[in-house]
Amino acid sequence: MPDHRPFISLATDFGAAYTGICAGVMYGIVPDATVLVLSDEITPFDVREGAMLLRQALPYIPVGVHVGIVDPGVGTPRRPIAIGTGRGDVLVGPDNGLLVPAAEKLGGIVAAHVLENPAHRLPSVSSSFHGRDIFSPAAAHAARGVDVAEFGPAVEPLPLDVPAPVVAEGELTAPVLYTDRFGSLVLGAEPDDLAAAFGPLEPGTPLDAAWTVPGGTGRDERIPFSETFGGVAPGRPLLWIDSSGRLGLAVNQGSAADALGLAGTTSITLRAVRPA
Amino acid sequence: MPDHRPFISLATDFGAAYTGICAGVMYGIVPDATVLVLSDEITPFDVREGAMLLRQALPYIPVGVHVGIVDPGVGTPRRPIAIGTGRGDVLVGPDNGLLVPAAEKLGGIVAAHVLENPAHRLPSVSSSFHGRDIFSPAAAHAARGVDVAEFGPAVEPLPLDVPAPVVAEGELTAPVLYTDRFGSLVLGAEPDDLAAAFGPLEPGTPLDAAWTVPGGTGRDERIPFSETFGGVAPGRPLLWIDSSGRLGLAVNQGSAADALGLAGTTSITLRAVRPA
Amino acid sequence: MPDHRPFISLATDFGAAYTGICAGVMYGIVPDATVLVLSDEITPFDVREGAMLLRQALPYIPVGVHVGIVDPGVGTPRRPIAIGTGRGDVLVGPDNGLLVPAAEKLGGIVAAHVLENPAHRLPSVSSSFHGRDIFSPAAAHAARGVDVAEFGPAVEPLPLDVPAPVVAEGELTAPVLYTDRFGSLVLGAEPDDLAAAFGPLEPGTPLDAAWTVPGGTGRDERIPFSETFGGVAPGRPLLWIDSSGRLGLAVNQGSAADALGLAGTTSITLRAVRPA
Repeated sequence: MPDHRPFISLATDFGAAYTGICAGVMYGIVPDATVLVLSDEITPFDVREGAMLLRQALPYIPVGVHVGIVDPGVGTPRRPIAIGTGRGDVLVGPDNGLLVPAAEKLGGIVAAHVLENPAHRLPSVSSSFHGRDIFSPAAAHAARGVDVAEFGPAVEPLPLDVPAPVVAEGELTAPVLYTDRFGSLVLGAEPDDLAAAFGPLEPGTPLDAAWTVPGGTGRDERIPFSETFGGVAPGRPLLWIDSSGRLGLAVNQGSAADALGLAGTTSITLRAVRPA
Repeated sequence: MPDHRPFISLATDFGAAYTGICAGVMYGIVPDATVLVLSDEITPFDVREGAMLLRQALPYIPVGVHVGIVDPGVGTPRRPIAIGTGRGDVLVGPDNGLLVPAAEKLGGIVAAHVLENPAHRLPSVSSSFHGRDIFSPAAAHAARGVDVAEFGPAVEPLPLDVPAPVVAEGELTAPVLYTDRFGSLVLGAEPDDLAAAFGPLEPGTPLDAAWTVPGGTGRDERIPFSETFGGVAPGRPLLWIDSSGRLGLAVNQGSAADALGLAGTTSITLRAVRPA
Repeated sequence: MPDHRPFISLATDFGAAYTGICAGVMYGIVPDATVLVLSDEITPFDVREGAMLLRQALPYIPVGVHVGIVDPGVGTPRRPIAIGTGRGDVLVGPDNGLLVPAAEKLGGIVAAHVLENPAHRLPSVSSSFHGRDIFSPAAAHAARGVDVAEFGPAVEPLPLDVPAPVVAEGELTAPVLYTDRFGSLVLGAEPDDLAAAFGPLEPGTPLDAAWTVPGGTGRDERIPFSETFGGVAPGRPLLWIDSSGRLGLAVNQGSAADALGLAGTTSITLRAVRPA
């Protein structure tokens, strides 16, 4: 662990108050830490959104201890874990795949251990608030210099369950990973998938996007591929590559989820426009 | 006050921006403080929710200065106060009961004074933003080491107005204290009340829950008592004891408020299931 | 720059996660900084609301580096800038008027430069997340002591586009600047405008307020001018001067936007009540 002020980040689906309690527990154990609330507003129970956030964010954040908590399985036998990364970070959270994509971006998993040692938990552990009672104390002790191997037995972390994109000649079906604050959809596809389906895409090339809304109604819309939001007029939709390197479906200065009626949509199929 | 970095926490119903201004005022007075925003999203004007948050959170947070602001009476003659606790904290906020349950959890009230001394206010005090002009400067001065007695005359803090549960043989009526971010209801009853009404409850024991929604429609539902969320299937309701030791009404991986139509409900009556 | 811990504030329309990434980038460059998230919940794309927040907040916040990001033009040729103020601050953000009213409150603009120097950007700059790639690194370097002139060529910042109030004898039309978390409207008029239209107003004086809701329906309501929320009963509307010195339209312990159906209203006309 570093000889400067220990750095801890914290991303949860708890909202401000329960996240603040976690930070308070950490300060009680490492008063000189810098604790950054990376997010307290992940969509409740959305492990995939949380995993994508950590994967996108942590490479930009100092080496340190990073806590991620989206934990629909709290109170079941799912394991609490700490992961050491190749970059030198310690990731702390539930063993439900949340931490794994970020660990892969940070040099890979070099160690993983179950959080079992009572010396690194609060004296009393509730059945529902492991953020406070298990994850935050473990993170604070890791920031103090406790090695991840001291937390408990080694474990193989479970992978994240993410649907893969389906690529064909002139067609790409991508899962919706999550919808961000601006109403933009982040899709489970990357530039390589786009190139595999459509070849090199000139900015402005239109694609036919089709999706099904909950209840079963099909919808479609012709949407241009654009490198930047500014490539389409305000209020107009675009397909683009977002700042995390993912394919996105957005509306310039607006909400794609609202404007295109995409709430609850789980995948988008893109097709090359056929010559008339 | 401590010889390490002063610790201040801040919980408000202000949203991020006005809360950020308060933190900025504090940093102007104690630049080396650690300021933790415990919450900026208490439901506006909901003194009871704020009081329950502080009561739940502060025992887990370092000894220090803790500001709580939910203040529907700002601009009226309600008094701004500071409370010294048995644990050594200073609580700062309006004298409307907000701080009192937390003080009782922190070793009790050992001193309470009105915030009158102009030396510990901003030079100009507005009629509407006492968080910025009175509470934050007082908290920062307390964190610098100013004794609560220097703020102004001693005062007896007003108690929090909380309805008591009504316990009978085989029946318990509990007020809804607040609804949390996950849509779970926190009820004004504790395990002792449950035991007094129903005797020892085996996990899985069903109870009949009845309530009235605004507008007057009565509803009821049979709901099991379960120690953990994992004790019921995803999407199913449960009665449980939450991490603050309160009776709660929740849905596993879902929102009880939404699933059961509980928005605006002010109390829940539980009854033992009669043998058929 | 100061010899104590560098102070950086950050106000965005990004929500928690993308704002947290920006803070993380800053900590990577200045690990000993105090980074205050002033707001992460400005209404998306609402430059005017962001500008009013910065103008109101920064005078209460320590001298330092202050980042403001509401940036509907990201990815277009709009310039990223840093502004030096008379008080000694450095303001960092897009050149769309966002920073200018705050700079005027902080002793005026003493220097302004385009953020062009690649030494003060991240190595790779995306087209959509300049908060992470341009603004946060520039702010951190400014906090380290880099002079604004080192960022790039001098520039004249664009002004903020704010409608002026229209004052006549016995009539005042004021634009709605934004609606705050409590549902209170902040209007583009100050006490001087009120005095110019109506002369000195006794507390309790009623005015006739009229407005048009989107869709074209006109509405009006007689509303008293009151110095404090406590001057009217809970649930009743009032016209008042808010803590930033602006005319406001609010409801005591309630939401004016909801209670009066003001959502989407862009201006309010006040008229003196005619004797019957």
